[in-house]
Amino acid sequence: MTRPTPLAAPLAAHVVAIVGAGLVGSGWALVFARAGVRVQVYDPVAEVRARILPWARESAAALAEAGLIEDIEAVIGRLHVFDTLAEALDGATYVQESVFERVEVKTDICRAIDALMAPDTIVGSSSSGIPASRFTEGCVHRGRFLIAHPVNPPHLAPVVELVPAPWTDADALEGARELMQAAGQVPVTLTREIDGFILNRLQGALLNEAWALYDEGYASLADIDATISHGLGLRWAFMGPFETIDLNAPGGIVDYAARLGGMYHAMAQSRTPRAWPQETIRRAGEERRAALPEAELAARRAWRDKALTGLAAFKKASGLAP
Amino acid sequence: MTRPTPLAAPLAAHVVAIVGAGLVGSGWALVFARAGVRVQVYDPVAEVRARILPWARESAAALAEAGLIEDIEAVIGRLHVFDTLAEALDGATYVQESVFERVEVKTDICRAIDALMAPDTIVGSSSSGIPASRFTEGCVHRGRFLIAHPVNPPHLAPVVELVPAPWTDADALEGARELMQAAGQVPVTLTREIDGFILNRLQGALLNEAWALYDEGYASLADIDATISHGLGLRWAFMGPFETIDLNAPGGIVDYAARLGGMYHAMAQSRTPRAWPQETIRRAGEERRAALPEAELAARRAWRDKALTGLAAFKKASGLAP
Repeated sequence: MTRPTPLAAPLAAHVVAIVGAGLVGSGWALVFARAGVRVQVYDPVAEVRARILPWARESAAALAEAGLIEDIEAVIGRLHVFDTLAEALDGATYVQESVFERVEVKTDICRAIDALMAPDTIVGSSSSGIPASRFTEGCVHRGRFLIAHPVNPPHLAPVVELVPAPWTDADALEGARELMQAAGQVPVTLTREIDGFILNRLQGALLNEAWALYDEGYASLADIDATISHGLGLRWAFMGPFETIDLNAPGGIVDYAARLGGMYHAMAQSRTPRAWPQETIRRAGEERRAALPEAELAARRAWRDKALTGLAAFKKASGLAP
Repeated sequence: MTRPTPLAAPLAAHVVAIVGAGLVGSGWALVFARAGVRVQVYDPVAEVRARILPWARESAAALAEAGLIEDIEAVIGRLHVFDTLAEALDGATYVQESVFERVEVKTDICRAIDALMAPDTIVGSSSSGIPASRFTEGCVHRGRFLIAHPVNPPHLAPVVELVPAPWTDADALEGARELMQAAGQVPVTLTREIDGFILNRLQGALLNEAWALYDEGYASLADIDATISHGLGLRWAFMGPFETIDLNAPGGIVDYAARLGGMYHAMAQSRTPRAWPQETIRRAGEERRAALPEAELAARRAWRDKALTGLAAFKKASGLAP
């Protein structure tokens, strides 16, 4: 099925609805408002709705301080919070759904959106690992639904994975891609569904090895972390794993694979997939809480977001941003 | 065997010998010279020796431009290049060996160092995956040898993996750790040997999954790269994978493991370790060379190092550096 891409219109002609306004949904609201789009936000919980604008104002101020936006009031002025789903969806060309990640919860909200949406509206789900086919099959407009999975928080990490269900219209996928790109995000398009998509599969592969090394007592949690935060992560902050190895052998990626592919294969063969051991998780929890007491988790998250904001500003100033 | 740590002396009292002065060895020379240490460099190849000082001067200028060092001439003045191994080792308290990564080559140079070194000197090898037990067993002073594996280039990525052989003296490991820390690097200490150590095992795990996703046609090389360079890599530039997940669930790492451990286990079970497929490597090479012609690889490596320099300056200014 092909039809003209409804989203090829200029950004300012769009209306984006945000459904579910926890941390992920709020970040999405800021992404689109920052880009100049009218944003209509809905969350079923009154306390969550009450937090949206104060949070957005504070986050926009942090972006302004880092030189990433100019006019805080203009951004906030594009955010409109509604008490009902119908109001938020009214006139929406794109819906970003970010409700709790359980198949039943996603199924319910998608049916509710389905009943209210215009036939051409595109609906992206922030699902971090569950494919859209598990919760959109029964929708009348199921061809307009797909996954649009961000990194949290989306206004500080631009990547977004677009994953079509088997029944997603090609133009819905393309329209979502165009909108995300125009809004300053970095859309990554999967050809088809896979559990965990790309981002969390890559994270999971690295985590599984990290847990195994910790479990076997090779190093402390802190030292394993340092191999990334003061090592590999520095390159990965602006180059992917393939470009990294492409530059790491005189003849590029094919040369690298010839030199080191055997070593990596041997390492993989030494591992059998297994669940993260409970006792090891408990020990890891102790090490982390000794390094960072539970009461300081929130402050550390604010520290993380400040660092991500600074990194975004650095990348922009250095021509390394999208 | 315990003895007083020879390296507990102030940094300036040390003399560091660099054996093998390709890109890795040259980077090491700059690390120690920058920290205020006298550095004695040896490489068997005259053309390599001739390149050391011009390269160091250019690299020091880039560091100065980014505000990472102040006095270029003072740094360069600490670098002394010698035609013989004996001269470079004379008076050395620490030796960083960075010759070609083949067991025979490493074995030969370690025996040569062994014959010339003072009994208390510590010798770190830049080996990226081969444990020291495979090439130091026959050394008289084998207790003084260990792995000190950096990320390339070591003057821009501070992490260094310290991996003791079964016969490495505890004080040699501790001395190397103290020296690296004092020199501004971030030492990570492994309790025992494992092929690939930590850093390349983590890289390998992520690469194996990335190759599998590419092989199966889920996304382009560029899109897989973007999930890291505009997503996960942003956090990993200043937090490790464990701290990342610790901050990613309300109750910390134990809570995260309870919520998502099952998903990651399921993903791992869907994979069987296999060699990177030759046909896929060939296709990846084509995609990379279309994005970056072979003639531009060197310029892109310079771009990478400039980005790493800027990132180091950003992290230092933001309190995120060691």
